[in-house]
Amino acid sequence: MKKVLIIGIGAGNPDYVTMQAVKALNEVDVFFFLDKGEAKEDLVNLRTTICERFIKDRSYRTVEVESPQRDASTPDYKSGVHAWHRDKADIFSKLIGDELRDGEVGAFLVWGDPSLYDSTIRVIQQIVAERRVAFDYDVIPGITSVQALAAQHRIALNAIGEPVHITTGRKLTEGLPPGVDTAVIMLDNGSGLRALAGEDVDIYWGAYLGTADEVLVAGKLGDRVEEIEQLRARDRERKGWIMDTYLLRRSPANDRS
Amino acid sequence: MKKVLIIGIGAGNPDYVTMQAVKALNEVDVFFFLDKGEAKEDLVNLRTTICERFIKDRSYRTVEVESPQRDASTPDYKSGVHAWHRDKADIFSKLIGDELRDGEVGAFLVWGDPSLYDSTIRVIQQIVAERRVAFDYDVIPGITSVQALAAQHRIALNAIGEPVHITTGRKLTEGLPPGVDTAVIMLDNGSGLRALAGEDVDIYWGAYLGTADEVLVAGKLGDRVEEIEQLRARDRERKGWIMDTYLLRRSPANDRS
Repeated sequence: MKKVLIIGIGAGNPDYVTMQAVKALNEVDVFFFLDKGEAKEDLVNLRTTICERFIKDRSYRTVEVESPQRDASTPDYKSGVHAWHRDKADIFSKLIGDELRDGEVGAFLVWGDPSLYDSTIRVIQQIVAERRVAFDYDVIPGITSVQALAAQHRIALNAIGEPVHITTGRKLTEGLPPGVDTAVIMLDNGSGLRALAGEDVDIYWGAYLGTADEVLVAGKLGDRVEEIEQLRARDRERKGWIMDTYLLRRSPANDRS
Repeated sequence: MKKVLIIGIGAGNPDYVTMQAVKALNEVDVFFFLDKGEAKEDLVNLRTTICERFIKDRSYRTVEVESPQRDASTPDYKSGVHAWHRDKADIFSKLIGDELRDGEVGAFLVWGDPSLYDSTIRVIQQIVAERRVAFDYDVIPGITSVQALAAQHRIALNAIGEPVHITTGRKLTEGLPPGVDTAVIMLDNGSGLRALAGEDVDIYWGAYLGTADEVLVAGKLGDRVEEIEQLRARDRERKGWIMDTYLLRRSPANDRS
């Protein structure tokens, strides 16, 4: 039997790797590296650092493939994503089928945690459901940028006894559901940042969390939104990509509970 | 200057500890252990295992104190929690003031991640705001039971491009906000489990996640709720405490997006 490990390597800081992930890394025969666009160099560096730092006395192979790109021109977001996953499933099943021998362990390394806004688990499940190639798989959690954000700002995500809503920039532009006073926003292309700027909301923002390039901003959203937009533009220009995450919290005066 | 580290040690499995946490553990002079009720023995065992396994060539002191209990008879939940935090702040400031020498590092170990449904950061912030004792502090994230749940069930938390709502059993009994189709429930005393049992909802449930006692159940909520209630009753009886977490997802047919 072949085995595939989906390993969360944490959000940027190599030391976010768990002992469980380190043990898993040391069982891997073949790493499948999917390269994606602009962030490529930093991703490659993180992967390399983690493998070199934490894998001891073991030889492993690496197979690098170009990650398919989501066709952003597809009018329906979800059907675009489904087509993209299909492309990925084709690549993954070929990798597992051709590059992994029986009894070997293959691994996909996922930035952050595989359970949050990452397609790897879904793509693997699709291959399993279609019985395209026989293998077992396991998932190893990792520290997400949400947790890095909270730790670096030294804040709790939830208000006392209150929910935390994790959502995307795209969804935030439609507003927050009623009763939701705390939201963490991921995958924002910048469009979500001003969605609540007219309200009495605190923001805790972070980019390149856990890395040497980390930037943190906190304050009233209305006071900080311009500064954050400028930082976003500057760093995206400078580095070629940006990955940011932020928490929005309605002020306690508006607390409905 | 004194330093306090709030270290997330992950949800149950000692190997959920991150390399960052291991490095931090190896800088600690004094561990402050707060003992709480029934789960005490398992918590103590996890703490002991983690310290023994991951601290090398360093001597440290431990100070154990009884954790104050929240007065559950206080009619207003939040004022009860505030009074409880006040009691904790008294204890923490005494610990930091009396048990930690200048230049030393003290640590609170937090099950899971300090940013999610844990009071330590809030209590420390309160002491800092009141300038009761001078110290610096840092937060180190850990793997939460939410991530352990997703990894063990090998599922993504979010549906494609959709939000994830993290909430409590107490809040779930009031229903989910409109537009929320995926929720993760923590801190449920059992009352939340049947809140959506009449709807077409999938449940992914887990108790004692990451430990040798781990139990997982998945399926249609309506079909599984009785089994889960029986498991909860049995294990609570057997072990004296239960800690469970579950994900609820409305079926795709009801997907409103």
